[in-house]
Amino acid sequence: MAMPAPDPRILSRAPQIVAALRAVLPGDAVISDPEETRAYECDALTAYRCAPLAVVLPRSTAEVAAAMRVCHELGVPVVPRGAGTSLAGGALPTADSVVIGTMRLRDMLEIDTENRFIRVQTGVTNLSVSAELEPLGFFYAPDPSSQLACTIAGNIAMNSGGAHCLKYGVTTNNLMGATVVLTTGEVIELGGPEMGAAGLDLLGLFCGSEGQLGIVTEAILRILPRPEGARPVLIGFNDAEVAGECVARIIRSGVLPVAIEYMDEPCLRAVEAFAHAGYPKCAAVLVVEVEGSPEEIAFQLGRIREIADALDPVEFRESRNADEAAAIWKGRKSAFGAMGRLGDYICLDGTVPVGKLPYTLKMIGELSRQHGLEVANVFHAGDGNMHPLILFNANTPGDLERAEAFGADILRLCVEVGGCLTGEHGVGIEKRDLMSTQYAPDDLAIQMQVKDVFDPQWLLNPAKVFPLAASRPHRERAAAE
Amino acid sequence: MAMPAPDPRILSRAPQIVAALRAVLPGDAVISDPEETRAYECDALTAYRCAPLAVVLPRSTAEVAAAMRVCHELGVPVVPRGAGTSLAGGALPTADSVVIGTMRLRDMLEIDTENRFIRVQTGVTNLSVSAELEPLGFFYAPDPSSQLACTIAGNIAMNSGGAHCLKYGVTTNNLMGATVVLTTGEVIELGGPEMGAAGLDLLGLFCGSEGQLGIVTEAILRILPRPEGARPVLIGFNDAEVAGECVARIIRSGVLPVAIEYMDEPCLRAVEAFAHAGYPKCAAVLVVEVEGSPEEIAFQLGRIREIADALDPVEFRESRNADEAAAIWKGRKSAFGAMGRLGDYICLDGTVPVGKLPYTLKMIGELSRQHGLEVANVFHAGDGNMHPLILFNANTPGDLERAEAFGADILRLCVEVGGCLTGEHGVGIEKRDLMSTQYAPDDLAIQMQVKDVFDPQWLLNPAKVFPLAASRPHRERAAAE
Repeated sequence: MAMPAPDPRILSRAPQIVAALRAVLPGDAVISDPEETRAYECDALTAYRCAPLAVVLPRSTAEVAAAMRVCHELGVPVVPRGAGTSLAGGALPTADSVVIGTMRLRDMLEIDTENRFIRVQTGVTNLSVSAELEPLGFFYAPDPSSQLACTIAGNIAMNSGGAHCLKYGVTTNNLMGATVVLTTGEVIELGGPEMGAAGLDLLGLFCGSEGQLGIVTEAILRILPRPEGARPVLIGFNDAEVAGECVARIIRSGVLPVAIEYMDEPCLRAVEAFAHAGYPKCAAVLVVEVEGSPEEIAFQLGRIREIADALDPVEFRESRNADEAAAIWKGRKSAFGAMGRLGDYICLDGTVPVGKLPYTLKMIGELSRQHGLEVANVFHAGDGNMHPLILFNANTPGDLERAEAFGADILRLCVEVGGCLTGEHGVGIEKRDLMSTQYAPDDLAIQMQVKDVFDPQWLLNPAKVFPLAASRPHRERAAAE
Repeated sequence: MAMPAPDPRILSRAPQIVAALRAVLPGDAVISDPEETRAYECDALTAYRCAPLAVVLPRSTAEVAAAMRVCHELGVPVVPRGAGTSLAGGALPTADSVVIGTMRLRDMLEIDTENRFIRVQTGVTNLSVSAELEPLGFFYAPDPSSQLACTIAGNIAMNSGGAHCLKYGVTTNNLMGATVVLTTGEVIELGGPEMGAAGLDLLGLFCGSEGQLGIVTEAILRILPRPEGARPVLIGFNDAEVAGECVARIIRSGVLPVAIEYMDEPCLRAVEAFAHAGYPKCAAVLVVEVEGSPEEIAFQLGRIREIADALDPVEFRESRNADEAAAIWKGRKSAFGAMGRLGDYICLDGTVPVGKLPYTLKMIGELSRQHGLEVANVFHAGDGNMHPLILFNANTPGDLERAEAFGADILRLCVEVGGCLTGEHGVGIEKRDLMSTQYAPDDLAIQMQVKDVFDPQWLLNPAKVFPLAASRPHRERAAAE
């Protein structure tokens, strides 16, 4: 993925830019030593690396605003960063940019169980929000796999989901309000602790905008009472397409599990070798979790059993206690770690209508043979959010490019069957040039015109989301002004 | 509510404008006879009336696009209209505008139960969508009180809710995709039949944009399997604030009814006189409906009974069959008709955090005494969406203005307690000038800059949503270009 060359006029002014940031921020909030900025050279898409000109780590909305104001006045690109867990290169710096990190914005500001919200600074991790709420009997629903590390700021920027978003929705369904720092340093408030929104829904627009419009420093999140209990079941099938059919039938039946996770045979092999989870040897395994009162759980599991039995599963394993439940989840939760042991991989994030899962899985297998690269599928099946992992060898010249070409074919396939390039990872740099597959030129143009409103200089998170060719006129106009 | 004077340069060109529309549309699609255009002079906010220059009733996206193109080229304002059921004056024409109505866009295009969506032209009524789905065992969740008449186009423009949105969310939570005609006549597609959205979430931005950005001609709506059963209960209290407390406790407990409806004493009196629903004589009545399997219903009703009993209700009436259930809903469903018999009223639409309901109800009572006008409260309590009805006499000079002043005070109160000007009716002309209460000038400015992108000439739905004073620079710049 080509990144644009850094602007030499900015690089040559690096000392003045750092001095201007130091003039308005505490001493330890500005990092410019190349030894230290290197820690920010990439996110979880590690194939791409580039250290920024400087890194700023503010502790308040006012400090974020001060840093943004300096960058705006000096015309310096800004790369917003949460915990750097993006799999799409959403937080990849350019050499002429200042990274503004939210990780020190770590205060829990207010909990209101009566009105069911929590107000936080956005540098708190996703998991710490639910941990904070646990003693009160509440939780925050979106739960990305990286929840131990990833921040609410990143979750909002990418509209993150997670295993449980089938029942509870993704970030945009659970975000009630936000404090946003615009590129000028101006601070605006969007939404609030109630359901309404008068005028245009800018909160929804910000959610998933990948740092293109501003930096969210505080958020009001919807919280939910913890269910009485939850129970997973494991269902194994000898045919991957039949497993896909089982997912479609569960969804169609109206039972609403909190999670339906899918693992195919290559994934199961890796997981068994790594985690010894005791999964059956078969073509595909589903982990389905339901929750509620004991009566509700029993009722839902009964329906799921009926649906599965009609499809002749290899195994239908219920968990009778917490240990058995943990054993069922163990394999799924270790899947990404297990795949990492097999070698390098890129993790995709296409979404397809649930009814198209069987066909899409079959076609991915065919593409795998065509490209000569192995693929493993482990994903949130209930909402059609696929995560094919393409295995390659980073030390073999040309292998990354082949893997990327294979990945692009899979994402084009997702769009063809009526799906979307991304479910929860965002576009970042990874899918930037595929946006033209999803959108007609006019559709993209109007998205970029909305960006023009919030970021007229095109300084925020450069070279992400929009194809470079399509965004050139906007960037050139910005530069000329 | 002042409307701007019509542009004499447009009025003088009326014959040419009508001729240009007739040149691109079928003969019966353009109405310009003043006898006929009068039918479009107002919506459900009948205190304001103004017949448009012409009315266009297209039958396809292409015809909507053709009409928009003509208006754009000739610089004529466009007022989009669904069924005209807006309570906020969202479809009020100006004398120099062309109304583009969606009511002939009436095709059901596609039903896909496997992927759980229906694709419709947006002139279909809300109720007809669920009627179409009923034989298949599915339904479309948002259910505004006007669902017999109101169209999906209007629902999307206003982000409509309804009694059941407590459980299922409002329109934005159930809208998956849209075909939009922009002011230039250009047609774009937003979203699609899957959960993801790459790039900026323009679909969310369009939902609730009140015809300020374009006209939605086709929509993909999420459909849900019908629950096995549903059962309402009626709970009466001798104290209105205690009824509010009961709502807050139900929400806090984690039970999720599909609806919690609230009626206060003035409303109950009117309803009894009109519908003889047999409601208890008391300070406030809640109608709470739960749904699911018989076991789930029994479980949820048990919890609600415990919560209510602790607050010493006057009555807790369960329904044991369909007739008793209908009797419980009868009063609530006739509330607006019953109030209409008492005289003229305006129906407000503020939203407050649920925990603030008791305080807000008390303050509305005090404001009622101050303004010397009676108010009745009937609303969706579960999500804090209030609908105070202010009674006045349209034949008494100055009474409408007093009622509007009282209404403005109530909406300011909603904003003060952390709420919002509108839950589901939209801003329209009614709350246009109150937007400055909800938003700081910078917040409003950026909303209007987003409008600039989609409607650079400010032709779409003029004089709605944004305060006239605040929008003047945008409109003047548009006129100068």
